[in-house]
Amino acid sequence: MKTSAIFYHAGCPVCIEAEQQVAEALDSARYDVKIVHLGEQKKEIEAAEAAGVKSVPAIVIDGAPFHINFGAPMSALKG
Amino acid sequence: MKTSAIFYHAGCPVCIEAEQQVAEALDSARYDVKIVHLGEQKKEIEAAEAAGVKSVPAIVIDGAPFHINFGAPMSALKG
Repeated sequence: MKTSAIFYHAGCPVCIEAEQQVAEALDSARYDVKIVHLGEQKKEIEAAEAAGVKSVPAIVIDGAPFHINFGAPMSALKG
Repeated sequence: MKTSAIFYHAGCPVCIEAEQQVAEALDSARYDVKIVHLGEQKKEIEAAEAAGVKSVPAIVIDGAPFHINFGAPMSALKG
């Protein structure tokens, strides 16, 4: 069974670079990689915050949040 | 030819989690993953800084630095 890896972003340049370089680098044979654009899928913000995501881009691997560089705080994505 | 991915850390708990979850998740068929402990290999600090690494843990993929969460600033590893 593959490990879950959810990459959260908001379309910012920092996010796109991290998606192309880090999320794409994960081993798809071992990880089920899902990409979530929080600017477009605002209902996913709650799940991201519950996993400990404070800013984007971030990747939650097997439930653990890893913030990659800094694009935007979660607060900027709400409302 | 594989893409270079250098994971820089300093043995801190944040670093170890990132190593086990992120560095280990990279596709070794496509990436040549190298792990560098800057606390033990101080002569590598210069190369890490030249690549843009400001804190550890960080991973430099194909020359681009990605800081993962925050363990320690580079300044704490010197001297």
